[in-house]
Amino acid sequence: MARRLRLGMVGGGQGAFIGAVHRIAARLDDRYELVAGALSSDPARARASAAELHIAPDRSYADFTGMAAAERGREDGIDVVAIVTPNHLHYAPARAFLDAGIHVICDKPLCHTLEDAIALQRAAHSSTALFALTHNYTGYPLVRQAREMVRDGGLGDIRMVQVEYAQDWLTTKLEDTGQKQAAWRTDPARSGAAGCVGDIGTHAFNLAEFVSGRRAESVAADLSRFVPGRALDDNAHMLLRYDGGARGMLWCSQVAPGNDNALRLRVYGTNGGLEWAQEQPNEMRFTPFGEPPRTIHRAGSGASAAAGHASRIPSGHPEGYLEAFAQLYRDFAEQICARLEHRAPDPACLLVPGIEAGLRGMRFSAAALASSAADAVWRPIQAR
Amino acid sequence: MARRLRLGMVGGGQGAFIGAVHRIAARLDDRYELVAGALSSDPARARASAAELHIAPDRSYADFTGMAAAERGREDGIDVVAIVTPNHLHYAPARAFLDAGIHVICDKPLCHTLEDAIALQRAAHSSTALFALTHNYTGYPLVRQAREMVRDGGLGDIRMVQVEYAQDWLTTKLEDTGQKQAAWRTDPARSGAAGCVGDIGTHAFNLAEFVSGRRAESVAADLSRFVPGRALDDNAHMLLRYDGGARGMLWCSQVAPGNDNALRLRVYGTNGGLEWAQEQPNEMRFTPFGEPPRTIHRAGSGASAAAGHASRIPSGHPEGYLEAFAQLYRDFAEQICARLEHRAPDPACLLVPGIEAGLRGMRFSAAALASSAADAVWRPIQAR
Amino acid sequence: MARRLRLGMVGGGQGAFIGAVHRIAARLDDRYELVAGALSSDPARARASAAELHIAPDRSYADFTGMAAAERGREDGIDVVAIVTPNHLHYAPARAFLDAGIHVICDKPLCHTLEDAIALQRAAHSSTALFALTHNYTGYPLVRQAREMVRDGGLGDIRMVQVEYAQDWLTTKLEDTGQKQAAWRTDPARSGAAGCVGDIGTHAFNLAEFVSGRRAESVAADLSRFVPGRALDDNAHMLLRYDGGARGMLWCSQVAPGNDNALRLRVYGTNGGLEWAQEQPNEMRFTPFGEPPRTIHRAGSGASAAAGHASRIPSGHPEGYLEAFAQLYRDFAEQICARLEHRAPDPACLLVPGIEAGLRGMRFSAAALASSAADAVWRPIQAR
Amino acid sequence: MARRLRLGMVGGGQGAFIGAVHRIAARLDDRYELVAGALSSDPARARASAAELHIAPDRSYADFTGMAAAERGREDGIDVVAIVTPNHLHYAPARAFLDAGIHVICDKPLCHTLEDAIALQRAAHSSTALFALTHNYTGYPLVRQAREMVRDGGLGDIRMVQVEYAQDWLTTKLEDTGQKQAAWRTDPARSGAAGCVGDIGTHAFNLAEFVSGRRAESVAADLSRFVPGRALDDNAHMLLRYDGGARGMLWCSQVAPGNDNALRLRVYGTNGGLEWAQEQPNEMRFTPFGEPPRTIHRAGSGASAAAGHASRIPSGHPEGYLEAFAQLYRDFAEQICARLEHRAPDPACLLVPGIEAGLRGMRFSAAALASSAADAVWRPIQAR
Repeated sequence: MARRLRLGMVGGGQGAFIGAVHRIAARLDDRYELVAGALSSDPARARASAAELHIAPDRSYADFTGMAAAERGREDGIDVVAIVTPNHLHYAPARAFLDAGIHVICDKPLCHTLEDAIALQRAAHSSTALFALTHNYTGYPLVRQAREMVRDGGLGDIRMVQVEYAQDWLTTKLEDTGQKQAAWRTDPARSGAAGCVGDIGTHAFNLAEFVSGRRAESVAADLSRFVPGRALDDNAHMLLRYDGGARGMLWCSQVAPGNDNALRLRVYGTNGGLEWAQEQPNEMRFTPFGEPPRTIHRAGSGASAAAGHASRIPSGHPEGYLEAFAQLYRDFAEQICARLEHRAPDPACLLVPGIEAGLRGMRFSAAALASSAADAVWRPIQAR
Repeated sequence: MARRLRLGMVGGGQGAFIGAVHRIAARLDDRYELVAGALSSDPARARASAAELHIAPDRSYADFTGMAAAERGREDGIDVVAIVTPNHLHYAPARAFLDAGIHVICDKPLCHTLEDAIALQRAAHSSTALFALTHNYTGYPLVRQAREMVRDGGLGDIRMVQVEYAQDWLTTKLEDTGQKQAAWRTDPARSGAAGCVGDIGTHAFNLAEFVSGRRAESVAADLSRFVPGRALDDNAHMLLRYDGGARGMLWCSQVAPGNDNALRLRVYGTNGGLEWAQEQPNEMRFTPFGEPPRTIHRAGSGASAAAGHASRIPSGHPEGYLEAFAQLYRDFAEQICARLEHRAPDPACLLVPGIEAGLRGMRFSAAALASSAADAVWRPIQAR
Repeated sequence: MARRLRLGMVGGGQGAFIGAVHRIAARLDDRYELVAGALSSDPARARASAAELHIAPDRSYADFTGMAAAERGREDGIDVVAIVTPNHLHYAPARAFLDAGIHVICDKPLCHTLEDAIALQRAAHSSTALFALTHNYTGYPLVRQAREMVRDGGLGDIRMVQVEYAQDWLTTKLEDTGQKQAAWRTDPARSGAAGCVGDIGTHAFNLAEFVSGRRAESVAADLSRFVPGRALDDNAHMLLRYDGGARGMLWCSQVAPGNDNALRLRVYGTNGGLEWAQEQPNEMRFTPFGEPPRTIHRAGSGASAAAGHASRIPSGHPEGYLEAFAQLYRDFAEQICARLEHRAPDPACLLVPGIEAGLRGMRFSAAALASSAADAVWRPIQAR
Repeated sequence: MARRLRLGMVGGGQGAFIGAVHRIAARLDDRYELVAGALSSDPARARASAAELHIAPDRSYADFTGMAAAERGREDGIDVVAIVTPNHLHYAPARAFLDAGIHVICDKPLCHTLEDAIALQRAAHSSTALFALTHNYTGYPLVRQAREMVRDGGLGDIRMVQVEYAQDWLTTKLEDTGQKQAAWRTDPARSGAAGCVGDIGTHAFNLAEFVSGRRAESVAADLSRFVPGRALDDNAHMLLRYDGGARGMLWCSQVAPGNDNALRLRVYGTNGGLEWAQEQPNEMRFTPFGEPPRTIHRAGSGASAAAGHASRIPSGHPEGYLEAFAQLYRDFAEQICARLEHRAPDPACLLVPGIEAGLRGMRFSAAALASSAADAVWRPIQAR
């Protein structure tokens, strides 16, 4: 019988987007029960949100500090906390729960500043608790398979990695209209120094490294603020150099009309190529050199064990964003349970991005900003 | 605060496919809590399955009869039951729970025989309980929008309805290998007289009527058993005539290599057309006559209120089969809650297929089989 | 050195659509030189058209009878004539040139009536001249390859043949506006008894038989005239039974908004399937059962000799409708040259549809009309 | 009556690829007659090639110098010459025919070196003859329309231009196998200093400028020679900055498995976006911001006059690479005829790339190479 973990949440009160996504992800595979929360800095909203979510009043907290202390002290305290606040409010709660020995699931990007990220890495290393970062696109079955195919040599030596993540929702100055998402995501005080690069560029970067198995060593970046008066970058064009000699491009944009959430990865090696797009996640194009292209369907013919592990239903029954997100929760549940049960976790569940992936993202952002500030000269992306 | 309904389940023990789907669907939007079950006719398997699902031992029942009686008698008895057994085991439990005044969610097709279906309709009409049938494809946001667009005249008068549902999993004689799904679905004793037609043809038929708003009046059907020795049809070609003068075709197949779950609908009217395919459910092609085709994205530009009602996350973040399935659960929860709370339900939640849709499917199957037996002459599909 | 054949043309004067297509097709591979014509029944228009096409004035004829006689008598008379008049004007000129021993390329459908078609077949059999019918879709490289793959057993035994040809240009009553194409194609006196069925249904039928290698034995058809007041069918839904046990559907429509020229074929056998669509003719989906689908590109990896024979440029450089049309001209040139040179033609050039394919189309139309008139009962399609 | 121009050809003897393409392009619209040639530097091959092409023996020349002189002196001398030799053999014949007052159609890239290109520009400016460069992708109807839409403000102010051109035919060291195309295209002595960049990068660059109406001002380029031992670049990643503030990326590759001839352009402005891919050239995605994406079909609804000008047949009947190539020939014929007839040419025919486009391509290549040599720092692309 699979254990249900007791879950708490920081942030995610009424009206929040990503908090609701985390809750669905936690519920989907029935491995978590939401029992505590510090859902909002506004006490009334925190209470109302907790009630809506069937959280007992005494476990609806005014702030994460009190929550960490109280939950740590309870016999039935939470096993794990999800942190779903804006970027500038990741570090402090993550730190508090890690220090309290409570496992952490943190939304990305890891932190607001590189300094915080480095400090958090240290805290994670010192803690007995596990740390997961929701680079959720790594939960897609075919992304898992792509990674596995590259690792197993199916593409030969990797030469090029083309990744892009295009949206259009910030094509106009939406932040001036009072739209909340736009407001905080374009505000350096809450988002950090990277706008589009931090919000979605880090996803693209993470995906490129996750699948290619290569580490990007340097970046030449050209960031733009196309919308007049915008405080942060809304488009970035980058060249990348990976270890082992692979090279690539990364484009991220929030001002590309006609693109909703167009994350797309293409990897080419000496023997073949792979192409995958997040908006059609149930299929992947595999092009062994000199043979007709093949379309691999999640859970269909040609799907691997790695894809199967992250699938719930047969091929032709599309799974989507929520299922991929849930996969991180499901895999992380196994990691936690294994620890609780003093056993080794299922190796297939170890692919959840953690503190290192988070720090990589921060280092990537920092390097991209530095490069762009120096007119797109190459900047190293520090290894750790 | 949205009420969580107490849910029971009949069938769906370890190893079952559709039971697991129903449970995810019930969990996804947090409107149900699974608290009771008669999960298997094998007592040990029933107990083990219940334990896995965190169902208390005293609410794991040996059979649905006992379950209906016991749950009806409890203060905290279930509000609603999901019936996820093979077709021949729909009627009796559905009847028992309806008679006990407990709301019913039943998998499709409605019953094993037309006689049972008619009897069940009568039972449903007499019961105080509500009845939902999981023609789950009607839960897709863009299917809802398609229906709305047709109803609102966006296509003009409907002329043609082209629907097809193609799979390939029965291309070989899989039922001889011991595969459970194949075994019962090709067995007249468990599936009924219609094979492919009952299993997926009814979905296609339901979708065609749901979206077009037209009632099919007659059918000319040519059924095949392509796999030697197969006991039921595995492919069917049909002509249909709808009220109001529309005409159409329906193709369903389980022996079409390269098709996983290819349900596809196209509707054409005097002013425009619509095309939607289940395997890419987040987009729909809308072709107003004389204008460039438009691609409508679930929750994106051009998405209607009906699509928005059935969406959870923004456009570009794909939703899939499980979300569509969950939509029926979510809408049905609202119907039940409204009744419990003596108020009118949200009208947007009234599109869940019910007993009438179930009976329509049975009448369609019966007419198709009769037509095919008479060498594809037209047979009427009785209205009710 | 490849011989250039002397070509004449009947019909195809200024403003004609298909005449211009034939001329491009004839020019493309440099195997024909247009030197004579009876381009219009209007003498002034005939003269002007001839001048535009660089035809010498003495070889611009007032009518096809004079042309056949004069050209037959010239030392440098035409080798071959293209007949590109409306349907009711195919028989007489085809007959005249066949009788004159001049090779004939005739647009489809073969004739205006079945009687004419039978008579023309007899004339063709008696003539020393060759006869080609421009069922131009058979000239596509991947259609050729599809046929070859089926013939060579790549799909196993054929079970289902799904074919459709949808357009939308007659969605409104265009024939009332004076549009010439619409006027003659919806006029029984010029088109024959079949409207949509004759115009495009015959193409679909021809393609289905060409690729599947199966002969359709009977048809159950439901024809409609959706546009009020239209004199001929504008939509048809059909069931088909092929020799060897295969079954299929055929849909043709000229009133399906959003469809330009959507000819699409799908063939499924015991071992795999093939899918091809005319609007994206440079790729074909091949789905061996139990393996990932493959995309075969014209002239790319996986393209066969048959596809290569009908290609001019490398994969990725799209060829289209005109090239496919030209392929029939190119292959027919080889047939004619072989005859002139008293040698066997290249076997790859023998796939040009001829008089038999033309008669098949007429028999198909006749059977479909008869079936529809009898409320869609099965009607045999006579073998020859 | 449209005049047929007398055409000569330099290069393009037996076995050549691009020469055959030029000849089909010249024939397609019947505006040219091939009457003279210096088809090969090998006299026997030149003679045999001429005979095959029905060129009179006395107009088959041993070299272009003799040809230019002789044709200039004939009453019926050629109006125009097509130069289809490898890159290092463009300059001298182009120069010779320009100096002889004979119009020139030259394959791209313009020359072997920037110096030659500048000299040729001077020669073209001094000549009475016209000069066309076959950046053939500008002949596609929807490329013409895209340019027009951008120019007319349909996208607002242009912000991003994403262009790529990927192939895979040089994934392995094909030049070592004796394959002719690979041999000269990877040989600096015949191709010039740019490999992939010169061969296809210039096409991508030309397309980006042609459609966007923006002039690229600087480039940061990272060129690779992925195949060991290759003498020229086979992959390039670039950042671009355009006048008016637009920015973009350019990727070209000949080592990306699964890509045949994947030229793809995306342009985004303040009000909308456009996406077009050469392998599916008959449709273009137009995404006005805040509205559902539209698919514009060549010659269909939404197609503009510019697209119509470059179309021959209705929408749904695909045109391809050869038709686009032919469009340059057709438009150039009008330019030449207008000059011969002392009238203004049809303005729609003035979009044929000329000497300036050729020089732009050379300057782009030079700047990209210089940038890459300096580790991808920005290099200006000189304006003229």
